[in-house]
Amino acid sequence: MSERRTQILEAAVRVIAQDGVRGLRIEKLAAAAEVSTALIYYHFKDRAGVLHAALEHINHRAQAYTDHTDTADPRSRVEHMLLLELQDTDEVRETSIAWGELRASAVFHPDLRDPLQATTRSWNTDVETLIRQAQQTGTVHPALDAVATAERLTALVEGLSERWHSGSLTLDRARQLLTSAIELELNATP
Amino acid sequence: MSERRTQILEAAVRVIAQDGVRGLRIEKLAAAAEVSTALIYYHFKDRAGVLHAALEHINHRAQAYTDHTDTADPRSRVEHMLLLELQDTDEVRETSIAWGELRASAVFHPDLRDPLQATTRSWNTDVETLIRQAQQTGTVHPALDAVATAERLTALVEGLSERWHSGSLTLDRARQLLTSAIELELNATP
Repeated sequence: MSERRTQILEAAVRVIAQDGVRGLRIEKLAAAAEVSTALIYYHFKDRAGVLHAALEHINHRAQAYTDHTDTADPRSRVEHMLLLELQDTDEVRETSIAWGELRASAVFHPDLRDPLQATTRSWNTDVETLIRQAQQTGTVHPALDAVATAERLTALVEGLSERWHSGSLTLDRARQLLTSAIELELNATP
Repeated sequence: MSERRTQILEAAVRVIAQDGVRGLRIEKLAAAAEVSTALIYYHFKDRAGVLHAALEHINHRAQAYTDHTDTADPRSRVEHMLLLELQDTDEVRETSIAWGELRASAVFHPDLRDPLQATTRSWNTDVETLIRQAQQTGTVHPALDAVATAERLTALVEGLSERWHSGSLTLDRARQLLTSAIELELNATP
């Protein structure tokens, strides 16, 4: 991916996290990314193109920061990966707010649904893969439904994140609740 | 509550579910509710007043439809109450979309946070109360943390609902995932 393209998408995530999807206008994005509007049209065709690419970019950003873990144990990696979505750093907060906002917008803008679904599926699959590895190493019961467990845990992360960003839940409490949910899910003996 | 006031709030929920919070303009609401704009200002003072009252009204609507259950057993009532949030009826879909939209808007509009938090707390308390009753009747382990369980389950309902409305999850799958989460949570033996 070209450096300029990445620069524009980084700015797009920042603008969406600050002002919502409706705040993302090409002129504003050009100013935030310090590029010309022509370059944005060249890379993304139109505003919809920017939003679709921003969804993918959010996924790459999240994969990058949730991969930062020292442990090789798959079960611990599931825990780390999910808890890293609830962190008080600018990067995580920005990524998480932008992701929630794009998700909420897709309710009213059907053209966002396909890229949203693809990004959600990709995240679910990452968690599911780690759960299966944990099953192979014997730290998670072999009969556990890895697909459903991954779906429930990622949906819970989304629910908790939105409560955090909208001020109904402190970050600490969100992390506590997620930690106990992960334990409950991964300790299940179906 | 006056009949006219209810009529306006019903229309507000409908308009928010159709066009989002930004689509809620007083003129449009007046047309949808078939009342004068003056009556809206009389009851709610301004647009912010409408949004705050709409949040409360959503809570009443949800309480009304989630109370429809034949069973007296508290544990079954927890299950029913939560699953009734994932139903394919106009009323539930509309309430749920409007609730998600107000929640998402509160990320960018801090003045919505207090009423959102109050509504969330009220919902959590309803679920928590039923869980405590289930603990008294012996269908749920007495050492289970009713507060945390209620918070996790309602946050999961929100996460699943938003995936449903934004097209990443079918309603059937959302109900399956919620059913298994409820079972896992309420069967826990801490």
